[in-house]
Amino acid sequence: MSVQPARLVYLDNNATTRADPRVVEAMLPYFSEYYGNPSSKYALGAHAGMAVKRAREQLQRLLGVEHAHELMFTSGGTESTNAAILAALEASPRRREIITSAVEHPAVLALCGWLEKTKGIRVHLIPVDRQGRLDIMAYRAALSDRVAAVSIMWANNETGVINPVVDLAELAKEHGALFHTDAVQAVGKLPIDLRSTAIDMLSLSGHKLHAPKGIGALYIRNGVRFKPQIKGGHQERGRRAGTENVPGIVGLGMAAELAAAHMADEDIRVRALRDRLEREIVERVEHCVAVGARAERLPNTSNIAFSFIESESIVMLLDRAGVAVSMGSACSTGSFEPSHVLVAMKVADDAVRGGVRFSLSRDTTDDDVDRALAVIPGVIARLREISPFCAEEGASMTLNRAHV
Amino acid sequence: MSVQPARLVYLDNNATTRADPRVVEAMLPYFSEYYGNPSSKYALGAHAGMAVKRAREQLQRLLGVEHAHELMFTSGGTESTNAAILAALEASPRRREIITSAVEHPAVLALCGWLEKTKGIRVHLIPVDRQGRLDIMAYRAALSDRVAAVSIMWANNETGVINPVVDLAELAKEHGALFHTDAVQAVGKLPIDLRSTAIDMLSLSGHKLHAPKGIGALYIRNGVRFKPQIKGGHQERGRRAGTENVPGIVGLGMAAELAAAHMADEDIRVRALRDRLEREIVERVEHCVAVGARAERLPNTSNIAFSFIESESIVMLLDRAGVAVSMGSACSTGSFEPSHVLVAMKVADDAVRGGVRFSLSRDTTDDDVDRALAVIPGVIARLREISPFCAEEGASMTLNRAHV
Repeated sequence: MSVQPARLVYLDNNATTRADPRVVEAMLPYFSEYYGNPSSKYALGAHAGMAVKRAREQLQRLLGVEHAHELMFTSGGTESTNAAILAALEASPRRREIITSAVEHPAVLALCGWLEKTKGIRVHLIPVDRQGRLDIMAYRAALSDRVAAVSIMWANNETGVINPVVDLAELAKEHGALFHTDAVQAVGKLPIDLRSTAIDMLSLSGHKLHAPKGIGALYIRNGVRFKPQIKGGHQERGRRAGTENVPGIVGLGMAAELAAAHMADEDIRVRALRDRLEREIVERVEHCVAVGARAERLPNTSNIAFSFIESESIVMLLDRAGVAVSMGSACSTGSFEPSHVLVAMKVADDAVRGGVRFSLSRDTTDDDVDRALAVIPGVIARLREISPFCAEEGASMTLNRAHV
Repeated sequence: MSVQPARLVYLDNNATTRADPRVVEAMLPYFSEYYGNPSSKYALGAHAGMAVKRAREQLQRLLGVEHAHELMFTSGGTESTNAAILAALEASPRRREIITSAVEHPAVLALCGWLEKTKGIRVHLIPVDRQGRLDIMAYRAALSDRVAAVSIMWANNETGVINPVVDLAELAKEHGALFHTDAVQAVGKLPIDLRSTAIDMLSLSGHKLHAPKGIGALYIRNGVRFKPQIKGGHQERGRRAGTENVPGIVGLGMAAELAAAHMADEDIRVRALRDRLEREIVERVEHCVAVGARAERLPNTSNIAFSFIESESIVMLLDRAGVAVSMGSACSTGSFEPSHVLVAMKVADDAVRGGVRFSLSRDTTDDDVDRALAVIPGVIARLREISPFCAEEGASMTLNRAHV
């Protein structure tokens, strides 16, 4: 047994990514050297202001944003999505309905639930099919001139399933509803060109694309009425009060530039690694299914539902074996409810509590996949040996049940 | 003339401070090494969670906070003050009044203005005297069981004038009103022991005490009902959704520890530097007055109002001479209105547009003060030579007018 701990195999990049060392290096001068406030009138402030301007341009290029002022920096994805939806409702006070999907991130679902309960807003929760694909008929049926805002995620955080947001935004526009997309998982992984779409608002989070935690952005199309959710000073053109997080903004800018440069790698090399990981797990482990695998997906994400065992135990045993994965949304941690995403996708009863998300990144290597594959079948087998569900359902274990 | 630019004399620490290199060093491992989400179930996440716990304890010690869960991390001072006031209103929906002061930061005043205009909340704006001291009679008169929240700053950002918040909180408590204090300028400069007060909520900002921008905190006394303003995941005990800014939190914790260690230095050495700077300016420059100097003040702040000239020109010329100062609140930058604080203090008409804030920190040296003093009288004299106000009011310039 080696004294030196083996390098961690980190397969939870949809939860958070390692900040790229080039990102951290870009940030460093803005902590203790160019530490002025961008709004200050002196040279030290102007220097910080220029850095913010440069970062906005870097992000603009990644997203195909026409005007610099269409991007507003925030503290992260959750703040962005909250601000977008609340601002959309304020912009059209006579419209009292929202459309979203059953598989959104808690940042959207919790807010919508609160709006429904306390503000009397009607929320249309569009269902998905067994592959996680949005029910377009239901979406069309929900649209009307009573809808203030649509919020549909670009790609799902648990399964990677991609929504046709460009088309969905066009449909929303026909009804005068503002279209917001939570693109936290899509930005940096998929080509995005906002200027050629009808998307009105887009949320992103720095730490999902190798920038640090605590920084995010909200795209607000030119002309969209936006009321600030955090009130005070005139920062971000009066749309988000509070001293700008200059180092975080600089880091996000650099991360955007690097993401653009790595996108082809993500789409080819990382996709191949993900496909190999998924294929070999499904081949080598009985009674499991790759969730949403027949839908269009992000290149880095695989969600595998293992029958008869609970994801929490899998995550913990894999951790002891040096492999970090997750149960899906980090935000639902602590609850023993099955994932709302897998429930919405009608994953079979015996597998819905056994979903494990494997999410790769440009840091992931062939060796990582080999090492994960070396331990996963053993961990699953061990857990099934002690599983009460397996004992009870022993008979069904021998059947080659068709899941999904 | 030297090719090497001289070191900047930075006297704008109430706007923002230089992140302490020890703070940055403490943060560094949490970008690219221990980058897990605190809520993740595996060891990498637990490591980040421990770091957040440690930082909370460090901040707890600085502020005399009894329970760790009374501290919630935010993205900064403005978010904290907004959340505190909105949550206080939500906690007592039948109380429809707020008490605040005429000299608060825009983070409070802009929110209160919005609440008054759009939500029908009555806002009592308590005046101050010519030294910036709160009118306690008016404060007492405004208190009633119709008041949901009081928000009075601990120390003013433009003048450093300190409010007796411990007493004010006791008075608010008698009427069942929640007491919030914007302590952004006080934390790290004044001893604070929250457990021995009746203060219900306190806002602070990291970058005012040598932590980086983008991190802050809100103290919420145990038992105070608090509804989250940013909704989504279960972070911060369900009170502030969004992935925790782990490096920022670690930095704030270290900054809190360092602030406690440097507080005596701030109170003795920095105070002496400030007193010398102020005394010599007032002695060497005619027609200026140290605003609020007879009130109890922060040890690091001096606000001097220069008659017949505009602060913006002073800031710009001092910048060219290598001295960074400001016109007061960074947030009012861009407007040509005189400072609302100096207006509330009834600073004389010919000086109210000439207020300059000098704010020192533990980084400030004797040499900094010498170098500032070497250029200030010349800059003021030059500006007065070309000032239209001086030409017009030439006669009054020769009088030794008593300001304040």
